[in-house]
Amino acid sequence: MKIDDFSHWVLDRQQDVERALERWVSDESPAGLGAVMRYAVLDGGKRLRPLLVMAAAEAVSGDSAAALRAAVAVELIHAYSLVHDDMPCMDNDVLRRGKPTVHVRYGEAQAMLAGDAMQALAFEVLTPDEGMPPQLMSTLVRLLARASGHDGMAGGQAIDLASVGRSLDEQSLRDMHRRKTGVLLQASVMMGAACGNADAAALAALSEYGAAVGLAFQVVDDVLDVTQDSEVLGKTAGKDIDQNKPTFVSLLGLESAQRYAHDLRDQAHAALARSGLGQAAYLACLADKIVERDN
Amino acid sequence: MKIDDFSHWVLDRQQDVERALERWVSDESPAGLGAVMRYAVLDGGKRLRPLLVMAAAEAVSGDSAAALRAAVAVELIHAYSLVHDDMPCMDNDVLRRGKPTVHVRYGEAQAMLAGDAMQALAFEVLTPDEGMPPQLMSTLVRLLARASGHDGMAGGQAIDLASVGRSLDEQSLRDMHRRKTGVLLQASVMMGAACGNADAAALAALSEYGAAVGLAFQVVDDVLDVTQDSEVLGKTAGKDIDQNKPTFVSLLGLESAQRYAHDLRDQAHAALARSGLGQAAYLACLADKIVERDN
Repeated sequence: MKIDDFSHWVLDRQQDVERALERWVSDESPAGLGAVMRYAVLDGGKRLRPLLVMAAAEAVSGDSAAALRAAVAVELIHAYSLVHDDMPCMDNDVLRRGKPTVHVRYGEAQAMLAGDAMQALAFEVLTPDEGMPPQLMSTLVRLLARASGHDGMAGGQAIDLASVGRSLDEQSLRDMHRRKTGVLLQASVMMGAACGNADAAALAALSEYGAAVGLAFQVVDDVLDVTQDSEVLGKTAGKDIDQNKPTFVSLLGLESAQRYAHDLRDQAHAALARSGLGQAAYLACLADKIVERDN
Repeated sequence: MKIDDFSHWVLDRQQDVERALERWVSDESPAGLGAVMRYAVLDGGKRLRPLLVMAAAEAVSGDSAAALRAAVAVELIHAYSLVHDDMPCMDNDVLRRGKPTVHVRYGEAQAMLAGDAMQALAFEVLTPDEGMPPQLMSTLVRLLARASGHDGMAGGQAIDLASVGRSLDEQSLRDMHRRKTGVLLQASVMMGAACGNADAAALAALSEYGAAVGLAFQVVDDVLDVTQDSEVLGKTAGKDIDQNKPTFVSLLGLESAQRYAHDLRDQAHAALARSGLGQAAYLACLADKIVERDN
């Protein structure tokens, strides 16, 4: 696939997601809560998870309206986790996507509530009154709830909290990141796939693809934390070192971490080749984008 | 119905819920997160919302296994909202159900994460791999997500935050409480009802019942805040006055507030009579219990 075609597809889908978020995150929620939620989720971010959902759905010729709902739901979960993660009792971060974090702008109480409401909204978006088969709705809710909860993202953050200032071996670090970011990225792929009718072999291959890009994403994140400055990242750089957090760079060294990211990208490509899906080119390009990004 | 029969039913169902929570809120979640979640939800509380779910399900001869999942899900949402609501940036409360609040016991970061994970778990419990029809799963998720999100519970809490030290008229106060606590109590009734096959007229009557008991609950809460001490309540009494929060008592006076609660109870009974359901006795007793409770 030509780079231009992929870039065009990315811009197109990012616009679809932005418009859908504009529509579903209402300004009319009580007492300014809607405005806080919109600040937290609109007009920012690479929309990587939505892109994975939609690329996977297109790879299996899935229902595009359902995939857009799934994409929005995943992004709402991701965005709420950033709002809560940035709060003083967690990472205490003041900068996100180049803007003041939500609690800096609106106060901690509104930040916590907006995050809570965004999580609920994700599940609301997945269960419209009509237009989606109940079987698909329940599958999407199941995938998202499991990926974001105690055994997934929230569990990973708990491990992260407990690991500050302690040394983790590579396997523990991988487990933490698999839960903290990998599982939701993988679930994005599987939610997209659920919108179509892929067979079990294709689903297994997509799951492997999702696991590989999920881990690659975090390895690259750790690399960028030491190689980029805050302006390029749109968030505070060098925080992992400041907080004495274990990372793939602190564990493997910079060069090995970079090599590891490329190996994972190759694994993702190999899984796509095994999937037997003819329209997986966008997924392949997304794996490249994840590994080659500079912010 | 004899009081003894009802008391026996309540104890029975509370035990069912406790056992189900024991099973579904696992101690094995990473980095102690499971222990925090269990502290927040096990072994405490009147389980009013689960009782409403199960009484409604029994009134419509609904699927009891599905109703138990719905009951647990609603209680997880309620419990997570208490954990977050008690945090320093919100109500800053140190006592809940006679025990130190979660952030006092485990720290703010763990409290926030455990709350987040409990919300996700609620939706996970509603979407098991097998044993529940997809139509029912998606209906339950829809009811719970709408009741707990921006337009329901979280929205009500945002209004509450914004109202401290300001005067609200009776209609605004009712709207705040309808969202903050009423909508989830009403959703409990409707989730129970969804587990059976009630006709539209019965569902409409149950919805009115739910709205009446939901509002009655809050009116009584406001009354108890001034008439009971902290020991009986198991939480800090007199907080509304200390924080200069508008309440039904501050607005209507104590006697009128008490009369209002009894009127709402009568409305709930009338709605049940209109429902045409033959097995609504437990719902009737629960309306009485809500209004006559002393903590």
